[in-house]
Amino acid sequence: MLVPVIISGGAGTRLWPISRESDPKPFMCLPDGESIIGKTFNRAAELASVQNIIAVTNQNYFFHTREEFDSINKAGAKLDFVLEPFGKNTAPAIAAAAFRVSEQFGEDAVMLVLPADHLIPEQDVFQGAVNGAVELAEKGMLVTFGIEPTQPETGFGYIEKGSSISDSGFQVSRFVEKPDLVKAQEYFESGKFVWNSGMFCFKAAVFLKALEKTSPDLFRQISSCWSHTAKDNLPLVLDAESLKRVDGDSIDYAVMEKADNVAVISASFDWNDIGSWTALSDVYEQDFEGNAVDGDVIVIESSNCLIDSKTRLTAVVGVNDIVVVNDEDATMVVHKDKVQDVKKVVETLKKQKRPEFSEKKTTRRPWGSYTNLIETDGFKVKKIVVFPGQSLSLQKHMHRSEHWTIVAGVAQVVNGDNTFELKVDQSTYIEKEAVHRLTNIGGSELQLIEVQCGDYLGEDDIIRLEDIYGRS
Amino acid sequence: MLVPVIISGGAGTRLWPISRESDPKPFMCLPDGESIIGKTFNRAAELASVQNIIAVTNQNYFFHTREEFDSINKAGAKLDFVLEPFGKNTAPAIAAAAFRVSEQFGEDAVMLVLPADHLIPEQDVFQGAVNGAVELAEKGMLVTFGIEPTQPETGFGYIEKGSSISDSGFQVSRFVEKPDLVKAQEYFESGKFVWNSGMFCFKAAVFLKALEKTSPDLFRQISSCWSHTAKDNLPLVLDAESLKRVDGDSIDYAVMEKADNVAVISASFDWNDIGSWTALSDVYEQDFEGNAVDGDVIVIESSNCLIDSKTRLTAVVGVNDIVVVNDEDATMVVHKDKVQDVKKVVETLKKQKRPEFSEKKTTRRPWGSYTNLIETDGFKVKKIVVFPGQSLSLQKHMHRSEHWTIVAGVAQVVNGDNTFELKVDQSTYIEKEAVHRLTNIGGSELQLIEVQCGDYLGEDDIIRLEDIYGRS
Repeated sequence: MLVPVIISGGAGTRLWPISRESDPKPFMCLPDGESIIGKTFNRAAELASVQNIIAVTNQNYFFHTREEFDSINKAGAKLDFVLEPFGKNTAPAIAAAAFRVSEQFGEDAVMLVLPADHLIPEQDVFQGAVNGAVELAEKGMLVTFGIEPTQPETGFGYIEKGSSISDSGFQVSRFVEKPDLVKAQEYFESGKFVWNSGMFCFKAAVFLKALEKTSPDLFRQISSCWSHTAKDNLPLVLDAESLKRVDGDSIDYAVMEKADNVAVISASFDWNDIGSWTALSDVYEQDFEGNAVDGDVIVIESSNCLIDSKTRLTAVVGVNDIVVVNDEDATMVVHKDKVQDVKKVVETLKKQKRPEFSEKKTTRRPWGSYTNLIETDGFKVKKIVVFPGQSLSLQKHMHRSEHWTIVAGVAQVVNGDNTFELKVDQSTYIEKEAVHRLTNIGGSELQLIEVQCGDYLGEDDIIRLEDIYGRS
Repeated sequence: MLVPVIISGGAGTRLWPISRESDPKPFMCLPDGESIIGKTFNRAAELASVQNIIAVTNQNYFFHTREEFDSINKAGAKLDFVLEPFGKNTAPAIAAAAFRVSEQFGEDAVMLVLPADHLIPEQDVFQGAVNGAVELAEKGMLVTFGIEPTQPETGFGYIEKGSSISDSGFQVSRFVEKPDLVKAQEYFESGKFVWNSGMFCFKAAVFLKALEKTSPDLFRQISSCWSHTAKDNLPLVLDAESLKRVDGDSIDYAVMEKADNVAVISASFDWNDIGSWTALSDVYEQDFEGNAVDGDVIVIESSNCLIDSKTRLTAVVGVNDIVVVNDEDATMVVHKDKVQDVKKVVETLKKQKRPEFSEKKTTRRPWGSYTNLIETDGFKVKKIVVFPGQSLSLQKHMHRSEHWTIVAGVAQVVNGDNTFELKVDQSTYIEKEAVHRLTNIGGSELQLIEVQCGDYLGEDDIIRLEDIYGRS
């Protein structure tokens, strides 16, 4: 039995404006229509001996992650979640997953740790590397995946291979931090170094034992957090109070660089950790001038550009080596040599306390999503989408009234003392302070236009009386 | 008496996406909040001896032009319009204006012809040049304004000055077409050449007499058109049937290059005909790195860029000499050396029959405007703005129903057999095929959100039963 553990981490600020804190990199939809986390799920689900997949992610991403997995889970892999109220880096996250695997599948079950935001197009080569890793993991080793370098990259850490211990497995001589270009060139030419990919394979108990030995404090802290975590209510959410007292640390620092039973698999598949807009270029179709384009785009006398504009028309004229990305509420133009500096835009927005640093125009909710079409003094217009069978909380607002017009699907509406059905082209008026609820009782998406009127239109003007998602 | 005649011409395709056929260059709002045509109006109205201003423009621009003029007409200049059902170049347009001036103010009244889309910031220098022109016009001359060149420009025609005939006036040796760079350099260094600005000054009768002599066919055609044009209903609209038979020609070709009583005023004011996005840079505030910015913009490590983004957030990172322009529905990125090629985008859009080549997201109407917030199969959402006292036509639709919610102002609504008032936070439902009308009866803008539902949502699904703007 092999249990993939998909871990979702940071916000991917270098991929702003598409990636934001509320809707980060793993959820980005690639030109082929699949999300990055969806591709990772498929990659895991299609491996031999996989029936169960565990995702470790922030509590806020639970519904979105489950939605992504459910929509592509053809093989019917069983999903399980370990949710974090807040992040503590990879070591605690993987330890929690190891506890879960151990309790569910036995301490000898082999875990395959996969970051959610990697691209590996060649499934067969990936399967081969995993086979090699599982073989060593079964022997009690902590296995890391090293990628054979294709260039002297300064953006990754490296691992120096030691003696060969299997077909593709080596002992680890040492881990090295991101090098400068001279060092990177040296590593590249030596043939002895591989990129540190952040993917791992080991038995649950082997990892926990290693953690206890290499980072005893951290082991004690996360063990305590795990024992305080309620296991009855799914999805499982790590106990916040005790998680607060857990040291944040990476698996490399906490375990891999200190343990003595570490091996590295030398893998030669195409591997992309999508660290920047230029790293993403590879997944776009390119024209004869090297322009990678997705969306509604007109390119005139330009070359080697990346243009992503799914929600509006973009024209580029006479430019080279430029990245243009349009999201629903923002445009970013950056030279390809400066894509690392996109994070400075996010820092600026954060300093200015602007919502665009973390929020998108379309906000996801457990029941669906809403998009602000227009917002100004006195009124706001939203498009609201509710998934089949889902229901917003029973709620009321103290400062606004709402006009609902159904434009797709069938709703059941609670409006004050009345409960009734609303179909396309029908509307209702929710008075200020009236208790109301919206439920999709049809088999397809419910869509409505909501016109809000009032002196205050903030999202925090809501009193939730009942909620099927535990938010009341 | 001096009568400025403001003429509006082409679509300004080099300034896409802000300038479009339905809302062209003269209406562009500059960073100081004024439109280009508004600035032209002010320039004319502030001249000495001006009480009347005539605008010659396409019929479709009448309401918008009047709105622009009314909003800034502090001095209370009297407005008059000569509207063209379609354009026939400058000679017929100016001839029609000359007939109008002659009939209204006598044949010796002096006309000052000003294209709507020029910028001349120095009013006092402009007034001085106009004084010089009027002096010669009073003597029966056809006066053109030549701008003293500040560089060897290849984008303008030139005029060679002959003998001096007044303080700033010269006879004209010859008109020359746009030169190549070698010729332009020669003209520039000689000191004998000025740029042909397209501004003119003459008595109405002097111009008409010259036209009769230099282009007798055109004179006969436009005279016939004028005599067939109804003078009773204002605004005056040139008779379409007879205008069709008028030869299209420019005033330079038809008159100025052939007449013998032509003079040129040598003018040294700053003059900008806004031929491209780079020409517009001058009117933006610039930062220390030479970036000209208007709107919601973040600039990081970039220089010499022009960024116009009034309706959304734009971030630029690490780029130089790039123009980025965002309109409500489109983004354009062009290198400063290629701004002339922006027209190729418009040509491409036209070939693809896309609305963005001519229409903006906000569509102007005589009664106000509407903006499409979202449009998809089965429904469309619009924000509608109605000016005080204005009224949409009494109308009905065969394929759609409409839900109206008032979000600002006060409306009088006709809905089937009922007429009633609607205030903010009130709504009404217009059934398919129901006769309806919307009127702003308040003192401020009426704003409403319209949700349309139906199987066909085109603007042409409208039967107008009554219309105060003559469109029924």
